[in-house]
Amino acid sequence: MPAPAPPAVAAVLDYADANLAASRETLFELLSIPSISAQPAHQADCVRAAGWWRHQLAGLGFTATVNPTAGHPIVVGHFAGPVDYAGPHILFYGHYDVQPVDPVSLWHSPPFEPQYADGPHGKRYVARGAVDDKGRTVMFLQALRAWHEAGGGIPARITVLIEGEEEVGSVNLDAFLSGHKAALAADMALISDTGMWDIDTPAITTRLRGMTYAEVTLTAANRDLHSGLYGGSALNPINALTKILGDLHDADGRIQLPGFYDKVAPVSNAQRAQWDALGFDEAAFLGGIGLAQPVGERGYGALERLWARPTADINGIWGGYTGAGSKTVIASEASAKVSFRLVPNQDPDDVMAQFRQFVTDRLPPGATATFAAFSRAPGIEVNVDSPHVRAALAALEAEYGRPAVMVGSGGSIPVVTALRTILGLDSLLMGFGLDDDQVHSPNEKFEEGCFHHGIRSHVRLLAKLAGG
Amino acid sequence: MPAPAPPAVAAVLDYADANLAASRETLFELLSIPSISAQPAHQADCVRAAGWWRHQLAGLGFTATVNPTAGHPIVVGHFAGPVDYAGPHILFYGHYDVQPVDPVSLWHSPPFEPQYADGPHGKRYVARGAVDDKGRTVMFLQALRAWHEAGGGIPARITVLIEGEEEVGSVNLDAFLSGHKAALAADMALISDTGMWDIDTPAITTRLRGMTYAEVTLTAANRDLHSGLYGGSALNPINALTKILGDLHDADGRIQLPGFYDKVAPVSNAQRAQWDALGFDEAAFLGGIGLAQPVGERGYGALERLWARPTADINGIWGGYTGAGSKTVIASEASAKVSFRLVPNQDPDDVMAQFRQFVTDRLPPGATATFAAFSRAPGIEVNVDSPHVRAALAALEAEYGRPAVMVGSGGSIPVVTALRTILGLDSLLMGFGLDDDQVHSPNEKFEEGCFHHGIRSHVRLLAKLAGG
Repeated sequence: MPAPAPPAVAAVLDYADANLAASRETLFELLSIPSISAQPAHQADCVRAAGWWRHQLAGLGFTATVNPTAGHPIVVGHFAGPVDYAGPHILFYGHYDVQPVDPVSLWHSPPFEPQYADGPHGKRYVARGAVDDKGRTVMFLQALRAWHEAGGGIPARITVLIEGEEEVGSVNLDAFLSGHKAALAADMALISDTGMWDIDTPAITTRLRGMTYAEVTLTAANRDLHSGLYGGSALNPINALTKILGDLHDADGRIQLPGFYDKVAPVSNAQRAQWDALGFDEAAFLGGIGLAQPVGERGYGALERLWARPTADINGIWGGYTGAGSKTVIASEASAKVSFRLVPNQDPDDVMAQFRQFVTDRLPPGATATFAAFSRAPGIEVNVDSPHVRAALAALEAEYGRPAVMVGSGGSIPVVTALRTILGLDSLLMGFGLDDDQVHSPNEKFEEGCFHHGIRSHVRLLAKLAGG
Repeated sequence: MPAPAPPAVAAVLDYADANLAASRETLFELLSIPSISAQPAHQADCVRAAGWWRHQLAGLGFTATVNPTAGHPIVVGHFAGPVDYAGPHILFYGHYDVQPVDPVSLWHSPPFEPQYADGPHGKRYVARGAVDDKGRTVMFLQALRAWHEAGGGIPARITVLIEGEEEVGSVNLDAFLSGHKAALAADMALISDTGMWDIDTPAITTRLRGMTYAEVTLTAANRDLHSGLYGGSALNPINALTKILGDLHDADGRIQLPGFYDKVAPVSNAQRAQWDALGFDEAAFLGGIGLAQPVGERGYGALERLWARPTADINGIWGGYTGAGSKTVIASEASAKVSFRLVPNQDPDDVMAQFRQFVTDRLPPGATATFAAFSRAPGIEVNVDSPHVRAALAALEAEYGRPAVMVGSGGSIPVVTALRTILGLDSLLMGFGLDDDQVHSPNEKFEEGCFHHGIRSHVRLLAKLAGG
């Protein structure tokens, strides 16, 4: 299937093929570390994952360090490349942290005991982080290793930056980038945190939604109350919270924050035509998760809703008695986590302010609202007319024997914005994950075939960028 | 302060006074048993509390047994009374189970380590169950003990019935009553599970709201989803649940279930005038819990809203990610516990059916709803023109030096209905709790003064009912 490659590349690809089991074992080492950034109990595990990366990079000749932040540490490694190197200096970005694992009862195996399992596409790896982002970063690591072992050395100038707070909004990354601009200077960024179009079709992601994420708590009485003694007189904050959040969308699925759509640009007819040509089957997309009918704004196509329209989702809600049986309580407070997926031009801070106003305007007398904000990434569009994107297209077509497609993604990669605004870098987003990888869900998995192609594609990309 | 009592009663009251510390220690023994009926982990504690009651009653000459049910056991004790007894056979009802203690972090002391603490009214007892219902039942026990020790014997024919599932809807009580009608035959029921008007003014409760309590779970996708990949296409059950439950009330505080008010009778002008004369200070009532403005149906007075109008409260809600920080998940399900306080003539089963219909009518395509029901007690009015109520009024006036007031209660005591419909008994509800006792909340307490007066009032009531 792969097209013929120049001699050096062929040897490196052969090495990657012959050492796939070793690559898997390397990944499994990292997957065994429960580096959940959101949970303070896993702080030491995050430090351990950072140390693992430093050790791996040092073994390939990188000058690698673990750098403290106000949160979890950031790993940075430098490799100068050949003395006569004339290609772009590549900044590779990834993250070693993972999402929480709850509800843990839905996992078929312990989330941090990686499984080498069978699936309809052959072998797969099952663990929290299997794909996001440990699997996808280790692909790059193993491409570097293949060049180191079988290619006469890594052929490019590379800085590797692996952070530990991507899953909690990269809260300390901007300050780190700002504080180390010289040390992180490069010509382009390479990020492996996206997906393929399907298992046979590689993809480059050129459009990402942004996000702002709020936690809101409504407080009423100064203690929990008996609903018999107080019901009909005392404010119930859960009643109030559901009434307020129940108003987020109108009957057409449009979000009701005042001004929310003011800066949302319509997509061009050309763009819409391109997406239509992809033949996206929304029924099959939803069928895979047990749903039949789409939600979202009335009047928009499926890919446009997923890639180019903003959304509002309540990601969590809690209050009052949630145990077995009944308890006749009026709680003193109720909370929710609410996130907004944003498109280019929407300002996350504006939307957060609109949300606060939306809630505050609807507060019943006697209720107070407090807010916390966890994320503020604008949506982004990548410049597709660059030598780096062209190199990636060539590498992927050589590996897969068909052209890569240029897609959007409904998810956020806030670092793309940070790398552009702080370091002046455009990002190249090559994806190797699949839609059914159960990212952020129980039983997250990564297909071994995707992992293997991903290592090989990165081997090829390095050759292309280095002028091969 | 107390009016003079006949000689036998005086000696019994003296005994109760001299042995208050021992009464407190008896109560503290029972309070130390964490008999939380809602939580399976406390099953053995419920059995222990039942055994404690059997032992106490046997020590006073009762034929006492612990009787199994499909849930927690029921204690029954019989005392025949004097051979020439001509008064009513009294069935005393109480419960040994208590509410859960969460949020446990808000307790100032461990909920099952009773504290003998200071408060503005003197000494108080702090523990889960201090008042509801352990404190109020032990008052009766200690009145019996005072007669046993200092009055020449308990002067009445008494059956004591202490169940262990009041806080979970008395799910096995009806079957037990139906199965033991002969053994539980009596002339009246005496129940101590209500409150005073204020700390100086005794009260008899003549009107109770009923309740029906539902748990609803909305399910959408077959697994948790990444909100970036699926937001804008996949149904979010938390969004849907808040929209549905946010519609429970209209802007005037009226409940929107179709047919909900059809059987709600207006209260008479005379009744309304009586309640107005009580001079209830709703601002002070709410001020005590940190609120300033009442909620509830527009156009009704405070006591009418609390005692004679139905309500809907969401007692608990949960779904999605509820831990620290952020998680960009679209949950597969969301749940809530919703209870309706009912007034006489409303049928709990009708209201439950209305709620199911209300939810089902609003389900978005792709969502399914499942329901559980935990309680089905109609509202009730007690006949106030009875010799038993007159005896209670006399006993309370003698003890407090002022007349008792006849009040309603917003809470449910489903057993009042069960005792009437199954055993044919009217209930007498003398109350000794206060509004600020934090029933069902952290730091539940019982004033020692209320406990002491309660023992003495029951001593007097037994004399009155026995013809004294």
